[in-house]
Amino acid sequence: MNPDISRERENASFNLEILTNILDGGAEKTRRRREIESLVISDPDFQHEDLNFLSRSERYDAAVRKSAQMILKLREYGISDPEEIYSYKSIAKGVYQEPFGVHYVMFIPTLNSQCTAEQRKKWIPLAESFHMLGTYAQTELGHGTHIRGLETTATYDPSTQEFVLNSPTISSIKWWPGGLGKTSNHAIVLAQLYTQGKCHGLHAFITPIRCMKTHMPLPGVVVGDIGPKFGFDEVDNGYLKLENVRIPRENMLMKYAKVEPDGTYVKPPSDKLTYGTMVFIRSMIVGESARALSKSCTIAIRYSAVRHQSELRPGEPEPQILDYQAQQYKLFPLVATAYAFHFVGQYMSKTYHRISGDINQGDFSELPELHALSAGLKAFTTWVANAGIEVCRMSCGGHGYSRCSSLPDIYVTFTPTCTYEGENTVMMLQTARYLVKSYKQARAGQQLTGIVSYLNEPQSRIQPHSVSSRPTVVNINDLASLVEAYKFRAAKLVEMAAKNLQAELQHSKSNEDAWNNNSIDLVRASDAHCHYVVVKLFAAKLSEIGDTAVHSVLSTLALLYALHGVALSSGDFLQAGLLTVPQLAQISQRLKGLLSELRPNAVALVDAFDYRDEMLNSTLGRYDGNVYEHMFEWAKRSPLNHTEVHESHHKYLKPLRSKL
Amino acid sequence: MNPDISRERENASFNLEILTNILDGGAEKTRRRREIESLVISDPDFQHEDLNFLSRSERYDAAVRKSAQMILKLREYGISDPEEIYSYKSIAKGVYQEPFGVHYVMFIPTLNSQCTAEQRKKWIPLAESFHMLGTYAQTELGHGTHIRGLETTATYDPSTQEFVLNSPTISSIKWWPGGLGKTSNHAIVLAQLYTQGKCHGLHAFITPIRCMKTHMPLPGVVVGDIGPKFGFDEVDNGYLKLENVRIPRENMLMKYAKVEPDGTYVKPPSDKLTYGTMVFIRSMIVGESARALSKSCTIAIRYSAVRHQSELRPGEPEPQILDYQAQQYKLFPLVATAYAFHFVGQYMSKTYHRISGDINQGDFSELPELHALSAGLKAFTTWVANAGIEVCRMSCGGHGYSRCSSLPDIYVTFTPTCTYEGENTVMMLQTARYLVKSYKQARAGQQLTGIVSYLNEPQSRIQPHSVSSRPTVVNINDLASLVEAYKFRAAKLVEMAAKNLQAELQHSKSNEDAWNNNSIDLVRASDAHCHYVVVKLFAAKLSEIGDTAVHSVLSTLALLYALHGVALSSGDFLQAGLLTVPQLAQISQRLKGLLSELRPNAVALVDAFDYRDEMLNSTLGRYDGNVYEHMFEWAKRSPLNHTEVHESHHKYLKPLRSKL
Repeated sequence: MNPDISRERENASFNLEILTNILDGGAEKTRRRREIESLVISDPDFQHEDLNFLSRSERYDAAVRKSAQMILKLREYGISDPEEIYSYKSIAKGVYQEPFGVHYVMFIPTLNSQCTAEQRKKWIPLAESFHMLGTYAQTELGHGTHIRGLETTATYDPSTQEFVLNSPTISSIKWWPGGLGKTSNHAIVLAQLYTQGKCHGLHAFITPIRCMKTHMPLPGVVVGDIGPKFGFDEVDNGYLKLENVRIPRENMLMKYAKVEPDGTYVKPPSDKLTYGTMVFIRSMIVGESARALSKSCTIAIRYSAVRHQSELRPGEPEPQILDYQAQQYKLFPLVATAYAFHFVGQYMSKTYHRISGDINQGDFSELPELHALSAGLKAFTTWVANAGIEVCRMSCGGHGYSRCSSLPDIYVTFTPTCTYEGENTVMMLQTARYLVKSYKQARAGQQLTGIVSYLNEPQSRIQPHSVSSRPTVVNINDLASLVEAYKFRAAKLVEMAAKNLQAELQHSKSNEDAWNNNSIDLVRASDAHCHYVVVKLFAAKLSEIGDTAVHSVLSTLALLYALHGVALSSGDFLQAGLLTVPQLAQISQRLKGLLSELRPNAVALVDAFDYRDEMLNSTLGRYDGNVYEHMFEWAKRSPLNHTEVHESHHKYLKPLRSKL
Repeated sequence: MNPDISRERENASFNLEILTNILDGGAEKTRRRREIESLVISDPDFQHEDLNFLSRSERYDAAVRKSAQMILKLREYGISDPEEIYSYKSIAKGVYQEPFGVHYVMFIPTLNSQCTAEQRKKWIPLAESFHMLGTYAQTELGHGTHIRGLETTATYDPSTQEFVLNSPTISSIKWWPGGLGKTSNHAIVLAQLYTQGKCHGLHAFITPIRCMKTHMPLPGVVVGDIGPKFGFDEVDNGYLKLENVRIPRENMLMKYAKVEPDGTYVKPPSDKLTYGTMVFIRSMIVGESARALSKSCTIAIRYSAVRHQSELRPGEPEPQILDYQAQQYKLFPLVATAYAFHFVGQYMSKTYHRISGDINQGDFSELPELHALSAGLKAFTTWVANAGIEVCRMSCGGHGYSRCSSLPDIYVTFTPTCTYEGENTVMMLQTARYLVKSYKQARAGQQLTGIVSYLNEPQSRIQPHSVSSRPTVVNINDLASLVEAYKFRAAKLVEMAAKNLQAELQHSKSNEDAWNNNSIDLVRASDAHCHYVVVKLFAAKLSEIGDTAVHSVLSTLALLYALHGVALSSGDFLQAGLLTVPQLAQISQRLKGLLSELRPNAVALVDAFDYRDEMLNSTLGRYDGNVYEHMFEWAKRSPLNHTEVHESHHKYLKPLRSKL
């Protein structure tokens, strides 16, 4: 054990285990999580070469092998609870992905939710025994989130009772679905349904794409890998071009809409249930933001504790870089953010499960708020975490660029969350739509419920600079007062966006133009709303914590999170009259004080995230702090070191010399 | 040609060629640049498979081949002007790097500047004929910018007149030098010199590491590749462990310091000249920031012109995503930033060359300011460009994640500039040191010269809220007034940092502690100073432009750049009393207006950067806008598509099914 990092741990002011239990949601959950982790980590079948040393084809190969093993292991251990499966897999996968991901996350759930009873009976056993390996083919080369724009067609032919699937243009080629390129033999294809000469919009069709015996592409199917990406090397995101591919009528998922044998189209009753799945996935991503950021912070903080650099005082040894204020200012607010997002993730998951119960009983009343919240928070947390991972990486100096730090892999694996499951700006605008609607309802005297109820409060309709009409400006040492300030800032920005929208309507040709011409304000309002929710939930979490020492350190973190946000957006708070200019200087000083207060607990705060070395897969983030020995060992395994002299020397350098 | 993008070009309000000439520094330079580009682009020897499809070893192989070819071609064409060589190489390399980079940029220049005449005579011909291929080995596994901390030793043995080189610890292993792993047969090793029982600090030693005949590592030399990184796959950054490696006394670079045969150490006179090289490289990086960002903007803007998505008005076709305000707000300020940085890069290069002339005549007076400016601007521009590239990438939706967009490669190739040649935070603090020193001189009544002379102005020492003492708050429609506002903001933040430093000195144990405890304020002051310089130089450039139409569009861009920065840091401007709260709302509205004004020229503004398709290497950024066809063609070449059925299917999936 590196003595620097041991000393850090001795200095912690709180009991680590208590904090870890809070993060897990209870001591029993911690115990079970560790049990599952040990199953994977001690399993020789999951030992493999670092994927960074492999070619893309080898990585894909290793990932398929791992996926197949996970299936067998989960059965062997009898792990069937979805949360435990998720946990098992995330350890086994590490920072990498599995080509079967979409099979589990989209293909089987879609079959379950959109098949008739008869269809389910036919397809589910095939999917669960992996004879069918499926993907979900929605996005096209030229079309993303706007589903009405999708071009793939499924035309019903009553003479044979088949659908004929076509990709009529280059831009209609299905593009991006995970596992589509090489792994899947079926795809749920989203296509515009034509029957009896009419288009009935997007519907889902189970489409065989490869032979279940030979795995060769079927006639009329052009399928392949879309090529290398920024990360996700081990996944075969694919393309699919359909040329008059015929499938039986029964392959349309018919739980809701139907096409009868003669081609008569029967409308679906409602689509609210699919809406629920989307909300669930976005809520999960909030938790992913916390995980990606907490892993990155763990690596950066531990490394900063063992890394010595430059000198603070002449003649003294080089200090730990964690002692530099500039380093603390980069990393401690991110640790606070990781905690904040973790608690928000817990809240979203709990809320989703509560509301799901209501939905199953036909009560959809809370769904719109959760929908709006999950969209905005998905965008807010992924953007912040995305930038934060890079700050962590760059805080490690040169070594943060080495793949052995794991930080590049964490980044490339996480960054797509900013785009998939709803592009972030689109998400922010969805939340804004809900906020503006709520604001108008409040103005019309309606009593709002839930998180947006603050839009009812009279303080939210104050004019700029009317500080006197508010009880007081913020108390920068009081978290409750800061939560209020975030609330008023959000209210102010929602009001500004709504008013600008109203004003714009007088010049614009349409509602849609007015909306577009105020997108900047709308995104800003959503962002402030989400920021308020995060600060509020972090503060609320504190009241649940009994242990004094843990409460104390988390309170300091929460205050840091809140004040750091105020400092970054000080213009907003000044504009809303929530802050005075002299307070800005006080906040700067207070922030420095908070960094010093947190310094002794920095390592313990990331240790509490409880990532085992095998999960971080980072030489810089090692628990024992023995960074350099392991970097050297890792480097020796680089493929370029397999031979002492690379063949290019003989091929190019020797001839070059002879020509000069 | 895609009709959308043709229409964009027809709508441009200015003559593209005039703007391109301004960017190049004159019509003749444009002509010559294009001539050189054509040499590379039409050369069949530089046609090769997309490196994204190759394994790391194949990429390295391709890069060595290309490096060897470039050497022959440059001789063949007789290109010898350093700027033209730079230009030729940057086209041939594309977004990739060459393993010989350090040989040119550091090895040969160091030999030239630090060899005695006799040494030069011996080594230079070997280096220029590539019999010696060299690298510059300074950083160690445990040591970066702080050169006093380096541990490698060179101990003089007078009995054999040799130096004995050693890596005494794991942390002393040389780490990161480009081309060290496999390519180089010599390294300039920076080591602590010991002679006659005394350490004389860091000196440079020419160390043979591989046999010049067999290329095998020499006895006592442990050398290899440090493993995969975030980008730079084609470069063999290496490690070097020296175990009692003996080199002749003459291998120490002795132009300045010397060790005599008996071991007597002779001190160097001065080290100011090496200081100049560092300034030069940092100045060059400012230009790199402009290039990386302008390439990214070109790709994102062109793609936004051909990409259609969602609907603005019900029933109408999907609009170009460039028509969304949120998209404009992401991209247009970055286009403005790319222009700003380009002009700053021109200024830095011109200033460097002017000052170099003075230095050669023994006048070092302007060097400290240029040193401070190059450090700060290197950090300021690389951080902004780094984040900006990712904004461009994410503005392309899913396709920005594909390697065919080139945006991931631009990012991973550029991001190290934030760390190498001086870690950015360290750079900001160096600039801050100069600013605080200048501020103190100004307070002491000294008349400052150069860019910091604003610290002499009385307005820089105003108190918060004393708006009345200033002629007026900013006029948000007047660039000159905005330049003034940026100046006062910088002055205010420099003053705050200096005062906080002064106050801290009363509690701190030492100057160094006080400095560290104010790093946040100091970095912020540097940042504001650099931001002021950028706005000022952009505004200054406008006065050189004669063409009315070009002047008009660049003025709009400059105003956008300045106002966007004010909006992002509005707290600073409010705090300094340079802005009133009602003006904030006016700025928001004005920004929206500027986006609309720039919209018709968006494509033309990026076209003017004049990157040929071969240089962008991006399907999304194609000049002809025919994005989707080429994405499909590119994807088909993915290595995973070399076989229809991947072997993993037979190896893992078939057995899995039989086990379930």
